[in-house]
Amino acid sequence: MPDSDGDIVARVRAGDARATARLLSWVEDGAPGLAQAMSALASGTQGAHVIGVTGAPGVGKSTLTSALVGEYRRRGRRVGVLAVDPSSPFSGGALLGDRIRMQEHSTDPGVFIRSMASRGHLGGIAAATPQAIRVLEAAGYDVILVETVGVGQSEVDVAATADSTIVVLAPGMGDGIQAAKAGILEVGDILCVNKSDRDGAESTAREIRQMLSMTPRSDGAWSPSVVLAVASRGEIGPVVEALDEREGWLAEARHLHDRRRQRAAEEILAIALGQVRRRLADADGAALDGLAARVAEGTLDPFSAASLLLEGPGHLR
Amino acid sequence: MPDSDGDIVARVRAGDARATARLLSWVEDGAPGLAQAMSALASGTQGAHVIGVTGAPGVGKSTLTSALVGEYRRRGRRVGVLAVDPSSPFSGGALLGDRIRMQEHSTDPGVFIRSMASRGHLGGIAAATPQAIRVLEAAGYDVILVETVGVGQSEVDVAATADSTIVVLAPGMGDGIQAAKAGILEVGDILCVNKSDRDGAESTAREIRQMLSMTPRSDGAWSPSVVLAVASRGEIGPVVEALDEREGWLAEARHLHDRRRQRAAEEILAIALGQVRRRLADADGAALDGLAARVAEGTLDPFSAASLLLEGPGHLR
Repeated sequence: MPDSDGDIVARVRAGDARATARLLSWVEDGAPGLAQAMSALASGTQGAHVIGVTGAPGVGKSTLTSALVGEYRRRGRRVGVLAVDPSSPFSGGALLGDRIRMQEHSTDPGVFIRSMASRGHLGGIAAATPQAIRVLEAAGYDVILVETVGVGQSEVDVAATADSTIVVLAPGMGDGIQAAKAGILEVGDILCVNKSDRDGAESTAREIRQMLSMTPRSDGAWSPSVVLAVASRGEIGPVVEALDEREGWLAEARHLHDRRRQRAAEEILAIALGQVRRRLADADGAALDGLAARVAEGTLDPFSAASLLLEGPGHLR
Repeated sequence: MPDSDGDIVARVRAGDARATARLLSWVEDGAPGLAQAMSALASGTQGAHVIGVTGAPGVGKSTLTSALVGEYRRRGRRVGVLAVDPSSPFSGGALLGDRIRMQEHSTDPGVFIRSMASRGHLGGIAAATPQAIRVLEAAGYDVILVETVGVGQSEVDVAATADSTIVVLAPGMGDGIQAAKAGILEVGDILCVNKSDRDGAESTAREIRQMLSMTPRSDGAWSPSVVLAVASRGEIGPVVEALDEREGWLAEARHLHDRRRQRAAEEILAIALGQVRRRLADADGAALDGLAARVAEGTLDPFSAASLLLEGPGHLR
């Protein structure tokens, strides 16, 4: 049985790129064999440095990601890239032109690049991405870059589940206060002001440092780095230094362990809630419709409706 | 009992602003008396035109909202404004300077303005906002503007639960393709290119129209309007016209009914999932921690962990 779960997992572990691509499709689609394959994959799939890259559109996330791929390849490390797209009808393909920036790495067998959507996956992209990371770890990639394309909360959440998260900003367009308002500063382990050859880069960096200084941190916690870069010219030295420092910090007692445990808890919750949501919206769909009609009419309040829905006969299956 | 649930509901219905503010705090905090108060409030609270205003930071959402308040007040309609903030440690107060743009309306008794956070509310902001809308409807506001401050998915979801959603863009900074990538175009009933005195406004509008033309729509569905505005100078005529047209369309057979039924279904699901999440993360917290440790160690896969969590003894209560 060339396509049995056991076989695909063995081929992924052997570093077979086609099997890896196939298993990633299973992850995206929430394919029937997925749970079994992931179960077979569960043990011994650790060790990669997972780096999230997030930020508003247009700040240069893809360019920075591509430059980081180049740097890690020069160090001889195998690199996986996941480009996570919001599930939008508009993002189905034509708009993924950013992938072009990755093309210089597309023929390098030490680099695996994949765009990810979450259609069909229980728990959405928040659950699909950690699975995809597991697959790439099992396939032997040492560094996994998770670039998020959108700026939705789910994309920010995805980036934040990485071992190290880079929040990319640009002077002028996504200044510090706007980033803070969008809630993305706080997820950053490294805050990178890209396009720093433009006016206002230093003042944006200063603004961010000031905002970060107002955030209380516990003893021993990572202190976020604020760095400048011009990724389009390969000027990413300070980003790489910050990542190296972060990798050293993660290697210290329990930091990586705690981070991964927390990531696992979020992953489990996302899958569990996805299952419950599907049950409530699909299996109990008629019940939900009836309750919604009563709430819309004003004859029932939504709290009572939620209780009735959860108490319904179908909610366990 | 001056503060009993029945009393606060009666005072809200009488248009008492202090009681309204108080009940909105209950909504934000998920206060103990909330379910009972909302139950008392459930009947006969319809009729307002609920308008969502969303878009990337810096496009001028607050300025447009404020201009719309002015326009509806000139027509003699009572207006409620909910400014929904992402739950970020940075957005606790100092960054809410945008509210300043609303100050011209702050002394008008026909206008009620409120910033909303979701701390403590089961189901988060996605569940809290529809409740807050119900409260303002009961208090007799004819138009309710829901402005989202962040660009997270939850903020987009919130705006999309309105009767009519305006997606605000600005030429140059949030051009059409970027908006499409962020997944916000598809939630817009009206797409407003604000700051249209700047270069590129017409081409941004054209780009959006082109992208919208690629989206299949069913017969009788609303066809999104793309309009230009300079909200800072009060030049919002085309936005108002589009809103009037939309209000007429909603008044037609079943459109508003269907939209509100769908909104009620989302609201019920959000509350129900919030309850389940709280049970799983809190009541079953020890179980989740233990499962997360095994997943992080690689001795258990997250799907099996999710099933074990849902099968756990605590998940029903």
